[in-house]
Amino acid sequence: MADHHDIPALIADMGQRARIAARTLAQMPTEAKARALRAAAGAIRAAAPAILDANARDMAAGAANGLSPAMLDRLKLDERRIDGIVAGVEAVAALPDPVGERIDARTRPNGLHLSRVRVPVGVIGIVYESRPNVTVDAAALCAMAGNAAILRGGSEAVHSNRALHAAFVEGWTAAGGPADAVQLVPTTDRAAVGAMLAADGLIDLLIPRGGKSLVARVQAEARVPVLAHLDGINHVYVDASADRAMAARIVRDAKMRRTGICGAMETLLIDAAYCHPAELVATLMKAGCTVRGDDAVREIVPGLEPATPEDWDTEYLDAIASVALVEGVDGAMAHIAAHGSHHTDAIVAEDAEVAERFLRQVDSAIVLWNASTQFADGGEFGLGAEIGIATGRLHSRGPVALEGLTTYKWIGRGAGQIRGGTSG
Amino acid sequence: MADHHDIPALIADMGQRARIAARTLAQMPTEAKARALRAAAGAIRAAAPAILDANARDMAAGAANGLSPAMLDRLKLDERRIDGIVAGVEAVAALPDPVGERIDARTRPNGLHLSRVRVPVGVIGIVYESRPNVTVDAAALCAMAGNAAILRGGSEAVHSNRALHAAFVEGWTAAGGPADAVQLVPTTDRAAVGAMLAADGLIDLLIPRGGKSLVARVQAEARVPVLAHLDGINHVYVDASADRAMAARIVRDAKMRRTGICGAMETLLIDAAYCHPAELVATLMKAGCTVRGDDAVREIVPGLEPATPEDWDTEYLDAIASVALVEGVDGAMAHIAAHGSHHTDAIVAEDAEVAERFLRQVDSAIVLWNASTQFADGGEFGLGAEIGIATGRLHSRGPVALEGLTTYKWIGRGAGQIRGGTSG
Repeated sequence: MADHHDIPALIADMGQRARIAARTLAQMPTEAKARALRAAAGAIRAAAPAILDANARDMAAGAANGLSPAMLDRLKLDERRIDGIVAGVEAVAALPDPVGERIDARTRPNGLHLSRVRVPVGVIGIVYESRPNVTVDAAALCAMAGNAAILRGGSEAVHSNRALHAAFVEGWTAAGGPADAVQLVPTTDRAAVGAMLAADGLIDLLIPRGGKSLVARVQAEARVPVLAHLDGINHVYVDASADRAMAARIVRDAKMRRTGICGAMETLLIDAAYCHPAELVATLMKAGCTVRGDDAVREIVPGLEPATPEDWDTEYLDAIASVALVEGVDGAMAHIAAHGSHHTDAIVAEDAEVAERFLRQVDSAIVLWNASTQFADGGEFGLGAEIGIATGRLHSRGPVALEGLTTYKWIGRGAGQIRGGTSG
Repeated sequence: MADHHDIPALIADMGQRARIAARTLAQMPTEAKARALRAAAGAIRAAAPAILDANARDMAAGAANGLSPAMLDRLKLDERRIDGIVAGVEAVAALPDPVGERIDARTRPNGLHLSRVRVPVGVIGIVYESRPNVTVDAAALCAMAGNAAILRGGSEAVHSNRALHAAFVEGWTAAGGPADAVQLVPTTDRAAVGAMLAADGLIDLLIPRGGKSLVARVQAEARVPVLAHLDGINHVYVDASADRAMAARIVRDAKMRRTGICGAMETLLIDAAYCHPAELVATLMKAGCTVRGDDAVREIVPGLEPATPEDWDTEYLDAIASVALVEGVDGAMAHIAAHGSHHTDAIVAEDAEVAERFLRQVDSAIVLWNASTQFADGGEFGLGAEIGIATGRLHSRGPVALEGLTTYKWIGRGAGQIRGGTSG
């Protein structure tokens, strides 16, 4: 182990070992990766008592240090949460392996046969905060996709992370996985994050998991590519043509199913020609949501708090929504272009022409028609576990021609589905 | 036009206008983009005398400023080169439009139908040096893919670039294209490049076109994603199982067809068990190439210059090659892992098992079997014109699950094809 007083050297050493492990990982057959992951899952299950002991130390220190109840809840592990972590690893091990998938094939007139296949990214750095489950979730996803991971968790979870990491690596290596495939930064010195951000050439990709200040720091300072999103300022636009019951159902779910996730609606845009705007506001308020309206909305629903200019640019992640009346889909799209964060935006409409225009023109990573923004989730997309939602646009490799000058977005077409009362 | 004394404000203003134009462009039907590009091509053809006059001013200034003959050649326009530029725009206008292409579609158990479609990147900045044709090539490619372009050419080509840009925009806007879709930075102040590198949020993607110092500066300083490659330290590995005539043909083409392009071979790796190593060296020398060998090669071909340690990490872009003997494909892959630049590497072999291992394990954007590295080119891949070769690895958007943790590489399988004596 490198001297922790020289943090950049420590990260460089970890990066070099990760690079070597990544080469092995990239060539591991699917079943070998899956077997090693299942062994890691088994080792975590077996180590549950030690993991819970370690977590108890973190919880005690956190309480002594005055962590908020919400932070303590994110930090806490119990039997049920460990079961969830173990099940998560087993689920990742059962996913189809993307590595080696052929995504293009062509034979040139001269007989040269070209194919494009998926390969791992290489070495992925994960910087995260208090949730110790990220240690295992991120490690499993990176490894199954053939990538080595360098994990840097929050200092408040240090004992939990070490115990989880030790168990994961014990099972993983016993089943033949390369030991340096999943490394945990051994120091809680904040300089380690800086060294990872600067580790261009050692780390191929950084994924920050945590609050906005962490993501903002990573995006601002990283010399390494970053997959992340800073904000999820998501909109639901209810068109004049919307089905009345569906609109209320989707608006309630999009805001209130879980208010703290990045796919939650923050702003509701109501077509000035929609016949039941007050009902949408009442639906939110009845569900426990504080509503802040623009002048037009406050005329319809007197007594509402006024929305300030800052509200339209705010990700509440709480039971608060801003609501505006807009002039049809064009008004909605103008609002979204001015205030959105290119994460997830939805339209509720029966008029297919209007909806298709919204899907085509709204420039967000995910756009939905007649479905709740809370579907913004890899599991709900049928992709298995996700490591986050990325709102960046870059994606290309090899000759960059027309196709390489584009990226993609997800379009969802629904029939009023809400995600409803599942716990995931 | 903003005040040129405030360069960041100038770039910010251009970026905002580009963003608005990009929204229009992103929605333009294929035929509308193609028509506007054909009109731009026609306007350039019509403006040829003015463009040649402008170029003559640049050439005179360049000669007075002591530009090298190579730089003057890159700067020079004549009737034939303008014809080539015009034909290039017309070719881009005839390419299939990637925007809107559906690259994934799935219906979830709840009936939610999801598709993934290609969309433009947005606003693309191009920073380039003395070749004025880049002004038009880059503008046409960006526009056809639905992106707005901000062009910053070299000061030595300022009059040529302005004349080409004016003609392009005249034709493009006359046919209905948004005027701000293709903007040329109006100042040659070098601070403009710095402002573009820092224009996070205004420019979505930067593409440097030019020499290594330009690319290195952009990669080192950019706060904006970059598509590029710094080096093309490309290898040809000749396996013991290689066909003798094919090996000589490919090695000669890979190095000597054009020595100044990024796909040129720089290092030849010969299997110690290959029976005709001296013939490969002689083939290169007979074609006018200076060969620098390691000790083992120099024992076989006495009198060769010795290769220094730096040679293995050098992109000559010239009629120079370094040559090493290696222990089979594993030795070759170890050398490539240590010294390659992840651009293009090739194996010549009849043993399919060895070749497939090379294709699988060499971690480069393009890996080729029995074909010349000089095929590293979008046109040769059947992709139409290219804007460059990218060796970065990032690519993801929306929920990042397993697939989002991978990238891709190109694999070519050939039968000894060489690119030969075409002029492109």
